[in-house]
Amino acid sequence: MSEMLEFMRRLAAAAAGETLPRFRRGSAVVNKLGSGFDPVTEADREAERAIRALIGEAFPEDGILGEEFGLTNGEAARQWVIDPIDGTRAFISGIPLWGTLVGLTSGGRAVAGMMAQPFTGELYLADGDGAFLERGEEGHRLSTSSVEELSQATMCTTTPALFSSTQRPSYDRLEQEVRLPRYGTDCYAYAMLASGHIDLVVEPGLNPYDIVGLIPIIEQAGGVVTTFSGERAESGGNIIAAANATLHEKALAYVAGL
Amino acid sequence: MSEMLEFMRRLAAAAAGETLPRFRRGSAVVNKLGSGFDPVTEADREAERAIRALIGEAFPEDGILGEEFGLTNGEAARQWVIDPIDGTRAFISGIPLWGTLVGLTSGGRAVAGMMAQPFTGELYLADGDGAFLERGEEGHRLSTSSVEELSQATMCTTTPALFSSTQRPSYDRLEQEVRLPRYGTDCYAYAMLASGHIDLVVEPGLNPYDIVGLIPIIEQAGGVVTTFSGERAESGGNIIAAANATLHEKALAYVAGL
Repeated sequence: MSEMLEFMRRLAAAAAGETLPRFRRGSAVVNKLGSGFDPVTEADREAERAIRALIGEAFPEDGILGEEFGLTNGEAARQWVIDPIDGTRAFISGIPLWGTLVGLTSGGRAVAGMMAQPFTGELYLADGDGAFLERGEEGHRLSTSSVEELSQATMCTTTPALFSSTQRPSYDRLEQEVRLPRYGTDCYAYAMLASGHIDLVVEPGLNPYDIVGLIPIIEQAGGVVTTFSGERAESGGNIIAAANATLHEKALAYVAGL
Repeated sequence: MSEMLEFMRRLAAAAAGETLPRFRRGSAVVNKLGSGFDPVTEADREAERAIRALIGEAFPEDGILGEEFGLTNGEAARQWVIDPIDGTRAFISGIPLWGTLVGLTSGGRAVAGMMAQPFTGELYLADGDGAFLERGEEGHRLSTSSVEELSQATMCTTTPALFSSTQRPSYDRLEQEVRLPRYGTDCYAYAMLASGHIDLVVEPGLNPYDIVGLIPIIEQAGGVVTTFSGERAESGGNIIAAANATLHEKALAYVAGL
């Protein structure tokens, strides 16, 4: 499977070539929805184009689902799922917690994935044989924490404001149980979970491309990630990720089914 | 004043020698308060020791106020103010938004300062002659944004939960007026403000060492930073920082005097 790692390194480098020169450079922000604030930059589109080109060349039979350019070959058994810049709000705020996410599903299950943060030079990878962090010449295998008690857990979410009025009281109760809640972390939170630095991530309303690239990294580091209903996370939705099954079960009890 | 920049580079390097090897290494966390969660690491203490040693050697007459080891030579006209790790919660969560802050006051006014983030390799500096970002071999002068409307502003705060019940409704109203609120940014937010990537930072209950090192960077980049009463920020307290005087006035109206 080292061929997979090498291919993901190429994807990360190609994406970085489009994102990094535009980070902190004031590239134009387009408002996708016309109302509210859902920025998408030139960097987003160009990075997805670069990733699609490499996948199309190496695996022309595979399907591709990307945030910017939708679905291609949707009937293929293998699907690549791309979020060229997860955390566009962090990106436009100059904050290096955004990432380029690429995941590979086979028969609907995420088997390999990457999260690249090119400003810090971090590349989080999972190839089916483990999860790894590479940075420059250094690299090591990732493993999640052994924290099993909510009272010892650090929990991340992008912002509590994203929870619906139905979900919010349950989230707030969960937040009161944990040792330390943190906000504003986007995809970077899942990388910290896989690395053992934090213990829980809870986020509502994710799209498939927000999570598919991260599932293999979390799972192959020893973590558990599901929907609030306890189902596989590949379709997105309301997502809860934990360092281990015991902690996952305890946290899930607060938001189950919401 | 380039001697000042050079001295601050030495402080940053000495602190990084203590913080960086302990970042993401699971160094023991000590609970300062005995209740609640106020982590302070070995890195915090050793970095302050290293900074104090260099200041004591170069400027033995000057005073020093540090988060970890308190006040020395409090009667001196020149005072160095140190937060060895601002954002200890980010630090222990593996998130590179913490920083080493050192400020110099003269007659009570902050005249020079630095914020160093050694994992990303960023060094934000102000020496009385301007504010600068240095990273590796690269460097440039900082200037704040020209955003003068709340509806166009990105605003950061560490978490709204830090506002008191008296302050919170006013903060919430302000948050509703801005284009984009972001959480979880600690001292990094002020660096992004000085860099022109965000436009407002609002935070309650800061200590002097949380803000003194940042005041010169903000001001010398063109920004305005005061308390909620519109007074100088060197004593800490409730702090509001903006990209320019117009935006500062508009935002201050929401929290004035709280």
